Amino acid sequence: MTIPMHPPTKPSADPMKSLFEPDSIAVIGASATEGKSGYIVLKNLIDKGYRGRVYPINPNAVDILGYRAYPTILDVPDRVDLGFLLVPGQFVKETLIQCGRKGVKTAVIVSAGFAEVGEEGMKAQRELEDVIKKWGIRCIGPNTVGLINVERNLFGSFVSFSDWQDGPVAIGAQSGIFAGALAIELMEIKTQQFGICKSLSFGNMIDLDETDFLEYVWQDPACRIIAFYLERIKRPRAFLSLANKVRREKPIIVLKSGRTEYGAKASLSHTGSMALNDSLVDTAFRQYGIVRTDTLQEFLGVLKAFVFQPLPRGNRIGVITFTGASGVMASDEMFPLGLALADLKEPTVKRIKEIVPAWQPVRNPVDLWPAIGVGENRKVYEEPIHAILEDENVDVLLCILIGVPNSDVGDIGDIFARAMKAHPQKPIFLIIIGGRMKKRWIDELEGLNLPIYSDTSLALKAIRAMHWYLTIRGLDIPDPG
Amino acid sequence: MTIPMHPPTKPSADPMKSLFEPDSIAVIGASATEGKSGYIVLKNLIDKGYRGRVYPINPNAVDILGYRAYPTILDVPDRVDLGFLLVPGQFVKETLIQCGRKGVKTAVIVSAGFAEVGEEGMKAQRELEDVIKKWGIRCIGPNTVGLINVERNLFGSFVSFSDWQDGPVAIGAQSGIFAGALAIELMEIKTQQFGICKSLSFGNMIDLDETDFLEYVWQDPACRIIAFYLERIKRPRAFLSLANKVRREKPIIVLKSGRTEYGAKASLSHTGSMALNDSLVDTAFRQYGIVRTDTLQEFLGVLKAFVFQPLPRGNRIGVITFTGASGVMASDEMFPLGLALADLKEPTVKRIKEIVPAWQPVRNPVDLWPAIGVGENRKVYEEPIHAILEDENVDVLLCILIGVPNSDVGDIGDIFARAMKAHPQKPIFLIIIGGRMKKRWIDELEGLNLPIYSDTSLALKAIRAMHWYLTIRGLDIPDPG
Repeated sequence: MTIPMHPPTKPSADPMKSLFEPDSIAVIGASATEGKSGYIVLKNLIDKGYRGRVYPINPNAVDILGYRAYPTILDVPDRVDLGFLLVPGQFVKETLIQCGRKGVKTAVIVSAGFAEVGEEGMKAQRELEDVIKKWGIRCIGPNTVGLINVERNLFGSFVSFSDWQDGPVAIGAQSGIFAGALAIELMEIKTQQFGICKSLSFGNMIDLDETDFLEYVWQDPACRIIAFYLERIKRPRAFLSLANKVRREKPIIVLKSGRTEYGAKASLSHTGSMALNDSLVDTAFRQYGIVRTDTLQEFLGVLKAFVFQPLPRGNRIGVITFTGASGVMASDEMFPLGLALADLKEPTVKRIKEIVPAWQPVRNPVDLWPAIGVGENRKVYEEPIHAILEDENVDVLLCILIGVPNSDVGDIGDIFARAMKAHPQKPIFLIIIGGRMKKRWIDELEGLNLPIYSDTSLALKAIRAMHWYLTIRGLDIPDPG
Repeated sequence: MTIPMHPPTKPSADPMKSLFEPDSIAVIGASATEGKSGYIVLKNLIDKGYRGRVYPINPNAVDILGYRAYPTILDVPDRVDLGFLLVPGQFVKETLIQCGRKGVKTAVIVSAGFAEVGEEGMKAQRELEDVIKKWGIRCIGPNTVGLINVERNLFGSFVSFSDWQDGPVAIGAQSGIFAGALAIELMEIKTQQFGICKSLSFGNMIDLDETDFLEYVWQDPACRIIAFYLERIKRPRAFLSLANKVRREKPIIVLKSGRTEYGAKASLSHTGSMALNDSLVDTAFRQYGIVRTDTLQEFLGVLKAFVFQPLPRGNRIGVITFTGASGVMASDEMFPLGLALADLKEPTVKRIKEIVPAWQPVRNPVDLWPAIGVGENRKVYEEPIHAILEDENVDVLLCILIGVPNSDVGDIGDIFARAMKAHPQKPIFLIIIGGRMKKRWIDELEGLNLPIYSDTSLALKAIRAMHWYLTIRGLDIPDPG
């Protein structure tokens, strides 16, 4: 029996490249049983058309999903770039050693039951660290869901995806949901969703970490916006120092949890993470231009804004509403965020005055309800939208629409498409309140890259995040010492 | 020509009754033109089956929608309880005088263009005040959208509704949206919506106000939960004093806006409201047991919780997740709200240990993902849900589900229906992350009165609001002096 042997090698110069762009993958723990992780990973690779070679590893199978299976990775006749480990926790060490002997450059350790489960697991995890160091394997995990690289059709996740929308966002997460359930939500419930080009689930990070990912996607032309879900930062100094460079070219948006006593405790049993002092994190993020978000909804809402709209040049918001109360609430929510109600210029006010009833004073927020049903509805929308977008005192247009039969206006998508075309540099944000007509309008607006929010305060937080990033993007800030 | 004349009368002893339960209504400014407010109000009354008599008033029509029209209200041969004024602003005064002469008890003044438009409008509004005093007419508005009383099939709103769900919530709002677009959203997008028995739009409140409404719905057996959208409080002392009684029987949930400098300015031009000092409002609400919410989403989310679930007896939350990150985020969000992660009892932990892999420690939040696909999925859900609901250390169960193919479990509605039946006193809150399966699950859970939130922080805010109300409901608090 001839087993190809490789001596321990030096760490690969570009480990993230061999993680995201491998020419061959061994799925160790591949399974022929539908529903098992070892089945889904293999099926994802095959069904999505991964362009490299795939080797199922399973000592009890000859063939899985039409691919020849091998008892161990050492039996694979060709070179293997990436090992995908799905074996039970107690077999991970041995399997990693086999990967080392085979000369595998990079390993994805999906198997769980390490630092996140306490002292015993921590010990086992340290043994893995010794193995990868000895054999020069770079690895992600343990306790990871995997990774996705759309460019290579590489869907290395044990969650199956029926759809996937490519796009400018790269997400690195200390959680599986961004390569799992949440990604499914983004992709399957298509309305108003943004695309993702790369997703990496970090797991317990015994080797490759958030800073490696940041470095990789910074250089990645497919990625325009970088997103992170983090419970800890493994190498804070390196991360911040790199972020300080990256922010000049690409925004970094982070959802950092484990920020309270409770969250930190929960994080310890999730990914074995020790908490950082949260106010230090906050200060550091502000210092180095990292956009911080506090909840999942805010994270997704801010990302959508960065994907869909240009950065606002200032903080002055022009508000169009079709209900006075919405204008009052939006004004309230703007104030503590440091956003300003734009002071509309005289010609703008004059143009809008021609649309609304004579008795109605025009000021920002502009309530157009009194004009509805009086003249031609389409004009009631178009004139004020264009007037406000043309106003030099306005940096962002926020429209709170009311989707009720009275306020129907034909194809609302057409109205906003024209507005965006005429004023490509001014971001527009939408809120729609209503029933069936709201649904119809959302359909009509689909594909315009016009972000619609269910919540004014979320839209305003997204605007604030974009404006803050613009103000800090170009600043010279000394690196962390 | 004999015009029935009534001398000026004393204010009706029970004006809210004649507003919500009139035996006859005159729609003054009724129109035969589809889409006009005067058309929609009349059509709503007829189509929804209002049980009283209806008189369209229009000097240029003989017949509108099959109902005989009269030139003025004075020409109506019968008694008229309620006058619904839709005439242009400049005709309101004269029309009100006619109502007075006719002996109309109550008027709904939809017409706008009064205090909300500045000095001129304020003057006109004061004239209306004189008229109603002189003629003893009680009124709501001007600048109101109208009112809804499901019991009487009285849909007095100029927004048309195709559906309406009756329910335990009465909403009084200084805005039209709760008898308009937002109500449409609640009613047409049926998933997980709560029903509304009464809705009143206050408008500029020259007469009847929030305190009158509170008094009326307090006594109303159809109403179990009282909700307000307010930009100001017209009679703060009376309102608080009454709220101090009402809270012992029914929760009062308020969305108060106009709380910042911006919001207050916008409110002035919306309903002519002068702002109250917001920190005083906050203190007073806390003092007298009024649940305050800050955004529209929070308002609706808190209302849904009160409608659907029993009050939690304490602040200790048991969390089930299928993703570690969600548990960490939920823990983080719980902490500043004063909610506690329940300390699971030993028997609970033991029961759950039998479900999860041996290596996994069990603590709150309980992550069930590692158990998925190992044994029977249904057991993975049911055992921990029942164990936690039975735990005396747990006051509320929060479940964060992951709707992906791996985690499918057949009819999830059945699982939760059983859990709710076995533990009717413990509130359950749900979050679902996922794509098509999430949609299917939401359908399966429909009708269970199990609140599903898109956002963990919103669910937690609702739990906090309910728990806070429980703690303050029975306290003896001295009335405002």
